[in-house]
Parts: sequence; structure tokens; C-alpha cells
Amino acid sequence: MTLLRRFCRIFRVNPWLVRMLILFTVSGGGLLAFSEAKSENGMTFDSSDADSKKKKVVVLGTGWAGISFLKNLKNPSYDVQVISPRNYFAFTPLLPSVTCGTVEPRSIVEPVRNIVRKKNVNVHYWEAECFKIDPENKKVYCQCNIAGNLNEKEEFVVDYDYLVIAIGARANTFNIPGVAENCHFLKELEDAQKIRRTVIDCFERASLPNLSDDERKSILHFVVVGGGPTGVEFAAELHDYVNEDLVRLYPKVKEAVKITLLEATDHILNMFDKRITAFAEEKFQRDGIDLKTGAMVVKVSDKEISTKEVKNGGGIATMPYGMVVWSTGIGTRPVIMDFMKQIGQGNRRALATDEWLRVEGCDSIYALGDCATINQRRVMEDIWAIFRKADKDNSGTLTIKEFQEVLDDICERYPQVALYLKNKRMRTLVDLLKDSKGDAVKESVEVSLEEFKSALSQVDSQMKNLPATAQVAAQQGSYLADCFNRMEECERNPEGPLRFRGEGRHRFRPFRYKHLGQFAPLGGEQTAAQLPGDWVSIGHSTQWLWYSVYASKLVSWRTRALVISDWTRRFIFGRDSSGI
Amino acid sequence: MTLLRRFCRIFRVNPWLVRMLILFTVSGGGLLAFSEAKSENGMTFDSSDADSKKKKVVVLGTGWAGISFLKNLKNPSYDVQVISPRNYFAFTPLLPSVTCGTVEPRSIVEPVRNIVRKKNVNVHYWEAECFKIDPENKKVYCQCNIAGNLNEKEEFVVDYDYLVIAIGARANTFNIPGVAENCHFLKELEDAQKIRRTVIDCFERASLPNLSDDERKSILHFVVVGGGPTGVEFAAELHDYVNEDLVRLYPKVKEAVKITLLEATDHILNMFDKRITAFAEEKFQRDGIDLKTGAMVVKVSDKEISTKEVKNGGGIATMPYGMVVWSTGIGTRPVIMDFMKQIGQGNRRALATDEWLRVEGCDSIYALGDCATINQRRVMEDIWAIFRKADKDNSGTLTIKEFQEVLDDICERYPQVALYLKNKRMRTLVDLLKDSKGDAVKESVEVSLEEFKSALSQVDSQMKNLPATAQVAAQQGSYLADCFNRMEECERNPEGPLRFRGEGRHRFRPFRYKHLGQFAPLGGEQTAAQLPGDWVSIGHSTQWLWYSVYASKLVSWRTRALVISDWTRRFIFGRDSSGI
Repeated sequence: MTLLRRFCRIFRVNPWLVRMLILFTVSGGGLLAFSEAKSENGMTFDSSDADSKKKKVVVLGTGWAGISFLKNLKNPSYDVQVISPRNYFAFTPLLPSVTCGTVEPRSIVEPVRNIVRKKNVNVHYWEAECFKIDPENKKVYCQCNIAGNLNEKEEFVVDYDYLVIAIGARANTFNIPGVAENCHFLKELEDAQKIRRTVIDCFERASLPNLSDDERKSILHFVVVGGGPTGVEFAAELHDYVNEDLVRLYPKVKEAVKITLLEATDHILNMFDKRITAFAEEKFQRDGIDLKTGAMVVKVSDKEISTKEVKNGGGIATMPYGMVVWSTGIGTRPVIMDFMKQIGQGNRRALATDEWLRVEGCDSIYALGDCATINQRRVMEDIWAIFRKADKDNSGTLTIKEFQEVLDDICERYPQVALYLKNKRMRTLVDLLKDSKGDAVKESVEVSLEEFKSALSQVDSQMKNLPATAQVAAQQGSYLADCFNRMEECERNPEGPLRFRGEGRHRFRPFRYKHLGQFAPLGGEQTAAQLPGDWVSIGHSTQWLWYSVYASKLVSWRTRALVISDWTRRFIFGRDSSGI
Repeated sequence: MTLLRRFCRIFRVNPWLVRMLILFTVSGGGLLAFSEAKSENGMTFDSSDADSKKKKVVVLGTGWAGISFLKNLKNPSYDVQVISPRNYFAFTPLLPSVTCGTVEPRSIVEPVRNIVRKKNVNVHYWEAECFKIDPENKKVYCQCNIAGNLNEKEEFVVDYDYLVIAIGARANTFNIPGVAENCHFLKELEDAQKIRRTVIDCFERASLPNLSDDERKSILHFVVVGGGPTGVEFAAELHDYVNEDLVRLYPKVKEAVKITLLEATDHILNMFDKRITAFAEEKFQRDGIDLKTGAMVVKVSDKEISTKEVKNGGGIATMPYGMVVWSTGIGTRPVIMDFMKQIGQGNRRALATDEWLRVEGCDSIYALGDCATINQRRVMEDIWAIFRKADKDNSGTLTIKEFQEVLDDICERYPQVALYLKNKRMRTLVDLLKDSKGDAVKESVEVSLEEFKSALSQVDSQMKNLPATAQVAAQQGSYLADCFNRMEECERNPEGPLRFRGEGRHRFRPFRYKHLGQFAPLGGEQTAAQLPGDWVSIGHSTQWLWYSVYASKLVSWRTRALVISDWTRRFIFGRDSSGI
């Protein structure tokens, strides 16, 4: 026994051994081939120097953005305090799997303290919720929400030098009456656990004696609102759960089950390629999932949900339900709304930042993930400054040569330009100028400000907000950590583009999102994927790609092993239906 | 993929294959050597005959007693309805392990529907709570407690021919002020989950800034009330959890943690051998668990717990705490209290049954498990009837020969007699008579009623109530199922002892409890066990025996695999500390 314990301690101390062990034992090692071999814990420097001189970084939130920032922060010259009501990071892409017990909730979480424990950077974690940000005095006000026996809520104030806001968003009810009270959401782990219990509750309630057939059907009517990837994946998971596992245990109520998916626009999975949408819609039809497009929810009572049929002249249809899952997009958290009012962004949906993720109008405050949007600067706003900067000889006109010298900086500072050129199939901005001046231009031609303006007049149309996904948040977190790691270095040797409105260069390159593709699991071991370069892949093999990628992206080797063993359990024993 | 699914379906259909698979894959196969190879699902008869003629059996409760009854009921001539607010069976001996995440809650539960699915007996399950029993009209009144959107609670009435009450007990607060409001209990799975969250909450609260050292110490003061096996095991588990896992994540609050175990009597683990008590007390002292015996809790406020020191002249001591776990014994559920009042047992602690588990004063109602106690009939009550029955020639005296003829029946009907003889190291009752009459008796001697009475006058002192354990409940369930299985057969050929007060024989042998031993896990991979024949075993090897026995006793192969893989996970990765 003691021998075994000692053996296990060896594993805990040498994570590599665990990796090898898991690779060879916990189900298909092939799955893990995708895993990044990157070391997570980093080095262990001595961090006992005078902490008081260190810059205080306060991170709000432990979601994708916050944890990605923490994991990538390596510069020991910061004193970091993390504040979040959740003392764990949850791998949210697997939330729909948790709703039906395909994966256990604990398998997709990793304690924050575990993640930051072995870092060389000094990180403190406080389990509390920030309820007020004071940018003038550089303070955040926090409240400990743990319902302890000490009934009064404990409040405390934390000073910062840099504030990183990454507290995510909440579900958006669009103020539709009854949604907040009667619907389930799918943002947090607790939501997923509640949905799981409610599904079983519905089956148990529908199994009781003395119910009419209509009552039974109402109770077993599951409505999913929102045809985005989350809603679609949940509907598909639920369909699998019902048909693979629950029908065996509740044979008598099998016929009464109905799943309805409501989508306000004309198609589900709008953000995906048309082929994927068509495949998903067909598959749902085959599966018997009732897909209602063009149906806008207008009211949810405790028993019925009412929709306005956009297509059929706006008639209102009402149907009874047993459970509604609301998955239509994200809204702003109250603390962010308050903060936005304070800094004059009161009329926005999310915190506006510049391309370096700095909150506009604030000093030393960064915002990333779902609670922020990057306010990409328009070329047209700066057109005069760009022209003046490029026009080195102050001639009032721009030669092609002058223009070429600032070209890279323009493309870096204004990514929409590169995008515009790509869509127009042009190689460089020079082509754009030529295009605008007609075919007969020579290298020596000069353009005036007006001509320059008209050539670039269309580029801003390419500006798009980034989607509110885990991928964006994670990339932003790692980008910001990289900036913090090299803050002093880049202060001395700025590496960013030219400051067109000021002197010198920006310290850092602006954040640039790299889309790595997106999955849409459709149930029945079928998944659709849209990969970079508009490569579309649908079917069983994509499901395996999905398994591999998700297994590799999980935050730690522990969670990887747990999720893979959950999948194995499900294959062998099916999903559990205990109402706990 | 489809191939794999098909492969897995084969496993689901042939549970034996799964057993083989698990035996060879999920960790040490040796563990499973202890497993009973008994088939659980039984045969699959056709049960489509006229259900209306079948006797209706209603089972209340899905704990040890109820599930053991259901698993062993094999006679298809019953129509069974199971009513319980929990749609699963929980393997309660592992509850203390759940409190600290050594085992996951879902690993120790099995859905009731899964257990009864493949039986040849017709079993319906309703997720509801019985709130009233009407023995005169043979009806039970039930309420569906699922918080559905249909806000009104649904009520329904179920008729029965036989009622089996197995709804267990609730924690006993002894009406000590503040206990119900401020303490945690350890009866249900939800309790264990709540304790797990609370432990982490305490560590997070204690880690917050702006706390004094005293506050920190109060928050991290864990008090366990009750030195029985559950309380001791929880204290030991908590100590391991703190010292093996939490100290690494909360290094700064390590010093402030304190575990106190309060016991009102002089020693913990009273029901065990003195060697085990001594070992446990020493181990706790070494571990730094503060063991306070002779301390009776008199009040629990939201921040402090007050005890009366029995030894030190009854002074009241008060200490602040972060969490109190109350584990002092069992109390009666309200529905049982109401029922007892109805049938004239209002002044009792639990439902009184006879030795055949039939509720006294009722017709066709059985009670087993923690909600019932067997009211063992005293020999002295029946002494006259026994004498008259034995005295076949109505001579007014009993010859040894006459006595010997009813001896087996006496021992079977009154188990205290056999126990008394064993303790007095006598072979048969005849020795007792001889003892009472003096050494010089011969075989031909005759005893009068008065002499007979005085010989047996001490035997009733051996009567003991059975402990409220899973072992007793499970044996009672399986005993009662066996009676139901052979009801008609035994009606024709009664196999029980002579009816001393009536004619003929009892249909069945009375219930007899067979003690198989008891474990007391003491933490640090050490367990004490008291096995039959007062064989005491303590140490690491006993821990392995504990692992083996518990793995083998789990209700299904699924839960066995899950618990063993939980143990494996814990050995490799430690326990999780996410606050979910």
C-alpha cells in the first residue's frame, strides 16, 4: 500500500510519467496524438524578491480569456491577483455534453489554484465577485459570495496597476417576458447540471400515473431556442440521450417525447457554410427533431411558449412545454454595464477596446473575451494622418515609392485593408491605387489626398466584429500575456506599426485573430467542421477529429484523462439517468 | 465508429463480457476476486398474463432494504409499484468518501429503473413521496415533489394488497437548538455533495485578504459531532483530503486548519472492540485531530458550537467553527410518526414489527430497514403457552423428553434463548433446566411451571435491537423477498416454528440477522475491521480488504467499474478541489 502511494507520488511530481501512463492505458492513444506537448508548468524561478516593487496586475474572471492570460504570463516582475466567483476553469465547449451526462461536470474543470500553482509568477486567487471598478483610483471592489455561516457578505478592495477584465457575458434574454424566470440557459456549469436534472425530472414526471396523454406530451416537449452551434449541439445531444439511453428505461413514454428547435432567422448554423446548414437541417428532419425557422419567441409563461411566425404573416403560435433551453446569444453583465456608464460607453453592448485590447478612455485597463469588443479603427478616420505621414517631403502628393514605405504599417494597423485586397484579389495597396487611377498609371505617378481617399474609401466595409467564442478569448488572453511578458523590452524597442497620428511606433503589434475552424456536433456520432480555407468536413470521421481536438485542447492532463475515460464509460455503459 | 458502437452494444446486451473486460482493464483485477458472481438480472419470463389478478405490492423507499427486496423478488405473480423521491439507489457506505471527492457521487448510484428493468416481475416506479398511509383502506397517498413548471404539486393515491415500508430514517437532532439550521448531515447524497462544496468554500473564504488570523482559524475549524463509524470515517477522510491535497493548493492557510471530533460518551467507536477504539483514538491524536470525548453539544449558533463537558463538572465550553457535520444517530421521518400515531405506536422511536417484519397491529404491512425495529417477543410473555404446548399429557409437569421435543422450536422462535445458552457456555436448554434444578437431576426429572419459569427467567436479558446498518436492511429486504417468493408454497407447507399460542406452525422462519463484520476506515490508508468471531484486523491490509469488499458489494458492474476508476483517479491525480 505505502509502496503504491509512493509510486503515485512519483507520478504527481513527474507529470510526464502520467502522460506516458495515460497514453498507454486510458483508451485509444491515437486520440492523444493531437495533444500539444508544450509544458504547462514552466520553470520555477525564485520569486522571493521584494514584492512591493512589483506591478500589481488584477485579473477579473477565470474563463477562457483570463486563464489563457494566466497560463501564458511568464514574467515574474508582476504580482498577480485573480478575482472570480468560480475557483475553477471550465472547458465550456463540452457544456452541451454535460447536459446529458456524456461527460461529467468535474471532468471538464480544473481548479485555478492548480493552474497557477507551479508558475514562477506570483499569483493569488480570491474567490469573490467584483461589483465595482473605480478606474480613477485604480481600485476594484469585491464581495465574497460564499454563503458561509458568517451571514454578512464580506467585502474588500483591491488596488491595481493594470486591470485585466475578462469576466465574460451572461445569457441574453432580449427582455422577452418570462424568459429569465422560466428558461434554462447554457452558460455555466451549474446551468448544465440543472438541465441534466430537469430532463430526468421531466421523464419521471411524465411516468407518473393519473396523467392524460396530452399532459404527458407537454411534459416531454423539450424546446431549444436558438439555432447557433450551442443550441444545435444541445438539441442533438438530447436526441441521442433520449434515443440511446432513456427509451430503454422509460419505454412507456417513448412516443410522447418531442424536441423542437426554434430559430428566428431562415436557417440554423448561420455562421457556417451553407453545406453544413443543409446537412444539419436534413439530419434533424430525419431524426424527428422539429425544426422551426423564422419563429421568434415573444413570451414564455410557466407552461407555454409563444412564437411569432415571421414567415406566415406574423401570427402568434403557442405551445405547451416541459423544458425550454435558451441559447440565443450573449448579454452584458451588470458590473460591466455600470463600468461602461462610468467611462462614457453607456450605449454600447460590450466594452470597447482598441486593437491592443486597452479599454477606450481608460488608463491601464484591458478587456478581453466575451465582455469586450475590439473597436477597429477606420482608415477613413485617419486618412489625413496617414497621408501626411507617408508624404515625407510634404509635397501634398504621394508618390508610389513614398506610399510603399508605409504600406506594411498600414496593413498592420488596419487589418481590414489586407482583407479588402484579398477579397478583391489584389496583391498590394499599390494595385488599389492603380485601380483607382485607371490602368495607365506608372510607378512615378503621384496621388493627391482626394485621390488617396477615394482609393481607400471602400476598405472599411470589411471590418467585422470577432465572434464571441472561446477561440477568440483564448487568443486574446495569450496575446495580452505576451505583451505583459515583454512590456519593458518593447518599451525600449517598439515593434508595432507606425503611429500615424503621433510620433514613433506602437509598442506592440495589434491583436490579430487567427481562425482555426469551428465544429458543430450534430448527434449520432456525426459532426460538421468548417476549417480554415473554407474546408468543410462532415460525418463520422469529423466526429473523431472533434474528439481528438477537444481532448488535446483540455486544460490539463488530468482533465484529458477524465474526459476520455468519461467517453469510454459512455460507450460501454451508456449515460446515467439518476436524478442527482 | 459505427463498428465501435455496435461493439459496445454487444457489451450492454451481454453483461458478462463487460465483467471480463473490466476484470482485465480497470485497475487491479485482484480487487474483483471478491465479487459475487451471482447473476443479478435473473431470468426473463413472459409476464403478459392477466395483471389484474396479481397481488399489488407497494414498496416505499429505494434504499438498502427496498432495493434488496426488489432485487430478490422473483415471483412473477405480483404487480409491484415502487414509490420513492429518489429514482436511484445510493451505496451509502461510500458517502463519507463522496464528501471529499475520493469517489464521485454518480459512481455510487444506480437508477432504480436500471435495477428492475430486466426482471421477470412487473415493477413500476413512481418518483414521488408518500405522505400518508391509510391502512384501513389499504391506500398510500403520494405527492410528486419534482419542481416542474406545473407549480401545483401533483398528488395521487395508490392501492395495495401488501405494503412494504422501507423509507429509512432521518438524522436525529435530539431537538438541540440550532442543529437543524446550522449543521450538515450525512444521510443523503445531496448532503455529501453539500459538505464537499462547503469544505472548499471554507478554504476559499479563509484565503481571502483582510481577514485576521482568528477569523481564518474559525473558518477552518471543522467540527464533527458523533464518534460512530460515520463521524469517525468522515473526520479521517477530511484529514486526508486536507493533508494530501488541499495543503498544496492553499499553502498559506495550512496552519489554521483544525478538525475536532466531539463524542458524548467516553470513547469513540463504542460498538467496536476496545482494541479498535484504542487504535483509532491514538491514530487521531497522532494525526492532530482534536478528539473531545464526554462533550455533549447543547447549542449550535450560526458561528459557534457550545458543549457541556460531562467530565469537568458540566461546564459549558463554546468554540467558533467553519462547518459542523452532525452524525449522531437516526430519527423518525414525519410520515412514519403520523403512521405510528394512527396505529397506536405513537410513543415509539421506530415502527415495531414482529420477527417476520410485519408491522404490529396492521394487516399486510411490512416494515424493514432503519424505519423499523423488530419487537422480539419475550419468552416470559409466552412462558405459560410454551409450557402448556410442551406438556403434551397435560400432567402439569414437564419431562425432559417432552421438553426436548419443542426445544428447536423454542430456539427458533426466541433467538435470545440460543444467545443466552451460548454466553453461558451451555449446549442445550436441558442444561439450563439442570442448572436451575441443581446438579443431581436425572433424565426422568419433571419440572413444574414455576421451576420452568425460574430456569428461563434470565434469557430475555439477551435481547438486543439490531443496529441501524445497511447490512441489516439488506438482509431484511432479501429475507422478505424470499417470503414473498414462496408465499403460496409456505401457506401449504409452513416451515416456521410451532405457534405456541395458536395451532399449527408459522408459515416462515422468523428473520435472523447474520453479522458479517463491520469496517471503520481511519484514514491514511488504514482501516479497522471487526469480523465475525470477534476477529479484529487493523492496518493497510485491512484497507485493501475494505476496497475489495466494497467493490464487490456495489450494486452493479457499472458502479463497480466507476468506483474502482475513481479510486485509480485519486491515486494518480489526487482529489479535485473545484467548488462545483
